[in-house]
Amino acid sequence: MTSHIEHGINTIEFGHPQSNSMPGKLLEHLAKEIHHAGTHEETKVIILKSAGDKAFCSGASFDELASINTTHEGTHFFSGFAHVINAMRHCPKFIIGRIQGKCVGGGVGLASAVDYAIATNKAEIKLSELAIGIGPFVVGPAVERKIGTAAFSALAIDATTWRSTDWARRKGLFAEVHDSVEGMDESIYRLANTLSHSSPEAMAAMKKIFWRGTEHWDELLKERAAISGKLVTSEFTKQAIAKFKAKS
Amino acid sequence: MTSHIEHGINTIEFGHPQSNSMPGKLLEHLAKEIHHAGTHEETKVIILKSAGDKAFCSGASFDELASINTTHEGTHFFSGFAHVINAMRHCPKFIIGRIQGKCVGGGVGLASAVDYAIATNKAEIKLSELAIGIGPFVVGPAVERKIGTAAFSALAIDATTWRSTDWARRKGLFAEVHDSVEGMDESIYRLANTLSHSSPEAMAAMKKIFWRGTEHWDELLKERAAISGKLVTSEFTKQAIAKFKAKS
Amino acid sequence: MTSHIEHGINTIEFGHPQSNSMPGKLLEHLAKEIHHAGTHEETKVIILKSAGDKAFCSGASFDELASINTTHEGTHFFSGFAHVINAMRHCPKFIIGRIQGKCVGGGVGLASAVDYAIATNKAEIKLSELAIGIGPFVVGPAVERKIGTAAFSALAIDATTWRSTDWARRKGLFAEVHDSVEGMDESIYRLANTLSHSSPEAMAAMKKIFWRGTEHWDELLKERAAISGKLVTSEFTKQAIAKFKAKS
Repeated sequence: MTSHIEHGINTIEFGHPQSNSMPGKLLEHLAKEIHHAGTHEETKVIILKSAGDKAFCSGASFDELASINTTHEGTHFFSGFAHVINAMRHCPKFIIGRIQGKCVGGGVGLASAVDYAIATNKAEIKLSELAIGIGPFVVGPAVERKIGTAAFSALAIDATTWRSTDWARRKGLFAEVHDSVEGMDESIYRLANTLSHSSPEAMAAMKKIFWRGTEHWDELLKERAAISGKLVTSEFTKQAIAKFKAKS
Repeated sequence: MTSHIEHGINTIEFGHPQSNSMPGKLLEHLAKEIHHAGTHEETKVIILKSAGDKAFCSGASFDELASINTTHEGTHFFSGFAHVINAMRHCPKFIIGRIQGKCVGGGVGLASAVDYAIATNKAEIKLSELAIGIGPFVVGPAVERKIGTAAFSALAIDATTWRSTDWARRKGLFAEVHDSVEGMDESIYRLANTLSHSSPEAMAAMKKIFWRGTEHWDELLKERAAISGKLVTSEFTKQAIAKFKAKS
Repeated sequence: MTSHIEHGINTIEFGHPQSNSMPGKLLEHLAKEIHHAGTHEETKVIILKSAGDKAFCSGASFDELASINTTHEGTHFFSGFAHVINAMRHCPKFIIGRIQGKCVGGGVGLASAVDYAIATNKAEIKLSELAIGIGPFVVGPAVERKIGTAAFSALAIDATTWRSTDWARRKGLFAEVHDSVEGMDESIYRLANTLSHSSPEAMAAMKKIFWRGTEHWDELLKERAAISGKLVTSEFTKQAIAKFKAKS
C-alpha cells in the first residue's frame, strides 16, 4: 500500500503478489487510507489504482479463505470488503478508479464502488463467488447500483464466464475504456487535473446525491458479510478452494 | 404443460396452439408447477421453456380477453399473470428462461421474471397492451426491474413497434442471444449443468438478494391486476380485440 | 413560447435567442403551459419542442445566473427547473420530446423528463454544471431515473466532455435517434398520431406507474434548488461565469 499526493491529487495504490488478491490486512489498510484521504484537506480528488500491469484485483485471498474455520472468522474477513466499500461511499471526494486489468469477485466490487472507472480493454470481469460455494453478497449492492439488477444477476449466476471490457462499459461499470495503458493514464490525468481545480463544495454535494439511498449500507453490508461468512465454512467451499489451489 | 426432471434440472414446458398465448387455466397450472419445483428437493435448477419453434409466448389469450364482461372477471384473469410472476419470484431456485421466439405483452413479463434468459435472435419483443386499451400493469414491475424505467416506458408507449433481440439484450432482458436454436440449447445446458452442481444454499441466498425490494409484489401485482381488469371491460378494448380477431 | 393543438396533439414550443437557454420567466411559462395541457380535455398527447435547428436547450441562462446575488434569489431561479420537471411528472398525458440538437445542463433535465424522447444524431449532451461550480442537483433525479446512477454520475463528473447521441440512446435518454430532422419528425408524427387515438384512461394509468416512486419530488426538487441556489453565489461560480461570458 502506498499513497502520495501531488497538486491535490491523492493516488492510493494497493498490491499483492498473488494477482492483487486481498487478504484481510490489506483490506483494512485500504479502508483506512481511503478514510484518511477523505478527511485530508489538501486532497481534492482520489485515484485508486493497483500494482503491476496484470490483474486490477482478483478478489478475496484464497490462502486466507482456506484458513477460515468458523462463521465468526468468515464474517470478520468479509467485513473487510464492507469497510472498504463503505469508506469509498462515505468519502466526500470523487474516487477515480484506474482499472488496468482483470477484476474478479471482490475486485469487481472495488471497481464498482469508485465514482468514475477508467479501464483498458484488458479489464475483463467475473463474479466467480458461486463457483466456490459462496456469492457476491457484500459487493452485491455496489455492483448492482452500478450495472443494474439484470446485469448483476447474470454476472453472478454465470460465475465461470468472463465478461468482456466492452460488456462492462455498456453496462456502466466502466465510464471509459481505452486501447492502451497510455490512453487510460492520459484520460485519468486529464480528469483528475480538472477535478483538482473544481469546487470542493460542489463536488462534496454531488458525491452525496450520487450515493443517496445507500445510507443503510453500513448495516446492510455487515449483514451480507455474515451470509458469506457462514457459507464459506461449508464443506462445499472447503473442497472447491482446495481444488482451485491444487490447480494453480 | 409438461415437466420432467433429470440430474437435478427441472424442465417446465408450457404451450398453447395459438402462439403460446395464455388462458387463465394455463397460467394457473404454470404458477403451481413453478411453486412445486421450488419446493421439490431433487430440483437444483429450473428451465422454463415453451412449445414449438415459433413464439415464446404471445401474452394473454385473446379468446379469453374477449369473453371478459366484468371488472371482477378481468381482475381474476390478470391475477393469473401476477401468480406466475410471484411464484417465480418466491422460488428459491434459479430459473433459466429458454426464449426461442417472439415475446408479446405478458410473454415479455415471463421472460423478464426468469433469473437468466437465453434467447435466439428470433426473439423480438413488443408490449402491445396499449393497442387494445389496456397497459402492461401486472408485468410492469418485472419488466422494469430487468430493463429499467426508460426502456420499459419506451416499450410500453410505442406499443406497435417490435424491438429487436439485440435491443432486448442491450437493455438486459436477455443475458445471452444466440444465432441458432442449437447454440441457445447448448448454452442453456452448460449453465443448467453447472448450477445443478453448485451449492443450493449459496444459490438460495443469492436468489433472495437478487429479488430484494420486491417483497411488496404479492400486494402490488394484485392492485395492478385490478387496473387491467377494469380497463379490459371498456368499449375501447372490446372493439380493439374484435378488430384484431377479425384480422387473424 | 407557442402552443397549438391539432387532432388531439398539443405541441408546446419554447425558445430563446441564446441557444434556447432558460431564464426564469421562460421556465415559469413552460411549467404553466405543460400544466394547462395536462388538464386540457382536447389534448390527448403532448409534443415538447424548441425553436430553431441548433441546440434543443442549453440549460440555465448565463445572463440570469450572473445576476444572482443571494441564496434566496438562486434558490428561486433553480426552482424554475423544479417546477417544469414536476409539471411534466404530474401531467397525466404522455409527453414526446423532439430533440433536434444539443442538450446542456438543465436541457438534459428537460430531455430526461419527457416520457419518450426522439432525437437526431446532432443531439449531443453534456452536464456542465460542475464547470461553473454548481452541480446537476435539480435535474439529477430526472436524469438518473432515465439513464441510471452510473451514467448520471459519469456525465456529471466529467463536466466538460460531450457525450454522443449514440451514448445517450444506449443509456436510455433517447428512445430513438434519427439521421435527419425529417426522420425524427416522421417518427414523432407516427407516434403522436397513434397515441392521439389510444385510450386516454389507459395512458393516464400508465403515466402514473411510469412515475411511481417519484411522489416525493415536489419536496426533493425544492431541496435540490436550495443546494444549487447556495453554490451559485460562491466566488468560484462568479468567476467561472464571468470567464464563460468573456469567451462567448
